[in-house]
Amino acid sequence: VDPAVVRAAREHQDRLTKPRGSLGELEAVSVRLAALAGTVPGPVPAAPAVAVFVGDHGVHAQGVSPWPREVTGQMVANFLAGGAVVNALARQVGATVRVVDVGMSAEASAVVGAAPGLDRRSVRAGTGDIAVEPAMTRDQALRAVAAGAEVAGELIRAGHDLLVTGDMGIANTTPSAALVAALLGADPVAVTGRGTGVDDETLARKVGVVRRAVTRATSAGAGPGDPLGVLAALGGLEHAATVGFMLAAAAARVPVLLDGVIACSSALVAAALAPEARAALFAGHRSVEPGASAALAALGLVPLLDLGMRLGEGSGGVLAVPVVQAAARVLAEVATFDGAGITDKQAG
Amino acid sequence: VDPAVVRAAREHQDRLTKPRGSLGELEAVSVRLAALAGTVPGPVPAAPAVAVFVGDHGVHAQGVSPWPREVTGQMVANFLAGGAVVNALARQVGATVRVVDVGMSAEASAVVGAAPGLDRRSVRAGTGDIAVEPAMTRDQALRAVAAGAEVAGELIRAGHDLLVTGDMGIANTTPSAALVAALLGADPVAVTGRGTGVDDETLARKVGVVRRAVTRATSAGAGPGDPLGVLAALGGLEHAATVGFMLAAAAARVPVLLDGVIACSSALVAAALAPEARAALFAGHRSVEPGASAALAALGLVPLLDLGMRLGEGSGGVLAVPVVQAAARVLAEVATFDGAGITDKQAG
Repeated sequence: VDPAVVRAAREHQDRLTKPRGSLGELEAVSVRLAALAGTVPGPVPAAPAVAVFVGDHGVHAQGVSPWPREVTGQMVANFLAGGAVVNALARQVGATVRVVDVGMSAEASAVVGAAPGLDRRSVRAGTGDIAVEPAMTRDQALRAVAAGAEVAGELIRAGHDLLVTGDMGIANTTPSAALVAALLGADPVAVTGRGTGVDDETLARKVGVVRRAVTRATSAGAGPGDPLGVLAALGGLEHAATVGFMLAAAAARVPVLLDGVIACSSALVAAALAPEARAALFAGHRSVEPGASAALAALGLVPLLDLGMRLGEGSGGVLAVPVVQAAARVLAEVATFDGAGITDKQAG
Repeated sequence: VDPAVVRAAREHQDRLTKPRGSLGELEAVSVRLAALAGTVPGPVPAAPAVAVFVGDHGVHAQGVSPWPREVTGQMVANFLAGGAVVNALARQVGATVRVVDVGMSAEASAVVGAAPGLDRRSVRAGTGDIAVEPAMTRDQALRAVAAGAEVAGELIRAGHDLLVTGDMGIANTTPSAALVAALLGADPVAVTGRGTGVDDETLARKVGVVRRAVTRATSAGAGPGDPLGVLAALGGLEHAATVGFMLAAAAARVPVLLDGVIACSSALVAAALAPEARAALFAGHRSVEPGASAALAALGLVPLLDLGMRLGEGSGGVLAVPVVQAAARVLAEVATFDGAGITDKQAG
């Protein structure tokens, strides 16, 4: 990011026909978008796309979710049929939905069957149980990162100019919490949440599982200095793909809207691997999940929506698409005091 | 609102393929929209319109704003030219912008000149100075209420199914604060804010002006039991028109998205006149202005956005249009567990 572009964007924003600062966070978003594009004003994103990366989780065996594993596959079928929440929200904002299998279990794959709409890039059939073993090998993590990067590249080459992260994978808030705890050095109890809504007993079990997983990974040498090692030890295949998705978009200077805790925990990995990638990241919303807020705070990202959502799928990211577009459009289209012949306020 | 429809909407929302409650406030909005329409699911608003009601304020003479009065007219010209923030945001969400003069000053009218795009319904050329005299007569207040109601009626007959409140009028956060203080019995210091951004000295003067205005009006007999009297004593012509706009939309069961403190203070008047009208009101955002939050809390409305905005014009309401549409669309389009053959979670 060129400081001169940031300054020029800020100065242009201050010449628009409105009291300075009166659009709050929308102004900051417009400046960040211009800085990312390297032009003032920046382009107004017109073709959003959400990539829903799908994976399953060995840690499901620890009883961290009340949903059976088969639901991952059932929901993939729902996405492909256009019946899920992310589909309805995407229709509302004109976004394309890409569903990408990077690691469904064999059971989930059986449920989905032959599905022409599914982008198949499976690296392995679900992760290992992080309570007792690494989620995946380093090589598998790298392959999933590459798969996510390829998806971003394809979408960008197809003309998409605003990418949104999405995810599906029963139990995937557990590896998210583990990633946040390991990368931020946070106590698992502070960053582990109820996911889709577990009861007190399950939450307590989940915190214990995250604690064991982080302890195991740390003892095996994984730590903040080796983000890829942490990802392989504790993450999900959808997390790894999301990391690659972010890195490729950032490299192409295309903004990425984050959804909830899966995206936020993945963003910690992406930012640890490539700190400059943060410039491309925008937080769609504040998920109820505590790990999401902890990650956003660490990344210095301000969520655009705060509606008490905790669904995933990309829902909170897609819902924020018009806010990002609006921010860019204000900088691009609003008249200036000079141009419109409007009296600026008296110095006070 | 029929409790049976509310129950049916809630039950339908709970059958959708997502964890119950996982869409947070979006679910509540979808249920309220269905209840307002009296059908489950409710219609998905497709043709939003924002009405920007314009008025001037005698209290400007007290030095409550650093902006000269002529800016009201200059901004009206900017709206008509499509160059203001509300225009850019309206283009983003596909909303029509209607600009309605209900009380511009003579100076502002002179600036605007012959403007074919302006909807002229002026009741009087600016209000009286509320620090020393009533803003308007009861009859004038009623006529401005009627003008706003007519605008809502015309927009609804033209097919608009989601109305957004907008306003323009230099100094209009001062009468807004006075309305909130008088109707809620709040201390002026707690509900008077910096408007478009005044300095400490101007803010202190503004609080004093609001205090004098409320004391004067109360001594003259205006109080919460007579909302129209309070409106005439302390409000603006744009506030009065906004009250009528809300009442007419509510009567037609069309949802109204509130922008900032001008709308929120007007909503207190509307809800005092017709408590059932509250069912049609949705809070677009939480304005920085403290009177807005006080009014929303009193009305029991939850703001959809909280981005630190304080512009007015309808900006925060228009920006929330896609969120309202998304809420309705989820209830209308998302598959149910039964319909999609998805396993519901195990009772936990």
